[in-house]
Amino acid sequence: MKRIEHLGIAVQNLEASIPVFEALLNTTCYKKEGVASEGVMTAFFKVGESKIELLEATNPDSPIAKFLSKNGPGFHHVAFEVENIVSEIERLQKAGFVLIHEIAKDGADNKRIAFLLPKSTNGLLVEICQEK
Amino acid sequence: MKRIEHLGIAVQNLEASIPVFEALLNTTCYKKEGVASEGVMTAFFKVGESKIELLEATNPDSPIAKFLSKNGPGFHHVAFEVENIVSEIERLQKAGFVLIHEIAKDGADNKRIAFLLPKSTNGLLVEICQEK
Repeated sequence: MKRIEHLGIAVQNLEASIPVFEALLNTTCYKKEGVASEGVMTAFFKVGESKIELLEATNPDSPIAKFLSKNGPGFHHVAFEVENIVSEIERLQKAGFVLIHEIAKDGADNKRIAFLLPKSTNGLLVEICQEK
Repeated sequence: MKRIEHLGIAVQNLEASIPVFEALLNTTCYKKEGVASEGVMTAFFKVGESKIELLEATNPDSPIAKFLSKNGPGFHHVAFEVENIVSEIERLQKAGFVLIHEIAKDGADNKRIAFLLPKSTNGLLVEICQEK
């Protein structure tokens, strides 16, 4: 893994949370982007070589809506940048990790992404991603 | 905030989790360190400019023991590096954040650290830290 590309943070209300994270991180939100296929609206902040991605559900079937009803707001996932997502999926599967997406799919922020099953990663929801 | 210094991940058993994270991150654990005052043993991995810190409780009164019994293993906190922890604590308090430690204290990995109350940070447990 090359770096922490971003941390995904689940929020109930994006517009209310953006100023909180702007004040916390002492920086401004530089992008908002919807991912219709996931039912989420996102907001991004830069911190060093990484990003913070706030995630708000845009419909009740969104994975974020389900996460919030179970856990409340807070940490949702960590995304690591990889050189080659196809070979990295293969390496992780050989090492015994279970991929939620065995074939990478389109994500926010111009990325190909895949998630790992938290049961195989000590309870941590992990995404791997590669710039398109 | 300069960068994500580390992510803290709570684990039930450090020796069992180290090979899992070595395989996941495709790197080796480079340091183990106990923090007696917190009742934790830690293990560190490098990812880009950031680290992954696994946290195992060494006694039942440890904050990590309490976290594990409530939440199970997984994400515990994110730590951001700051230039000057004293002025950063002051800036955050003025912005309305509530500090668990209003005066920085010694943490693992040769750092001065302070934690923020998750109620003031969208449910996210946030540490700020400065190299000693």
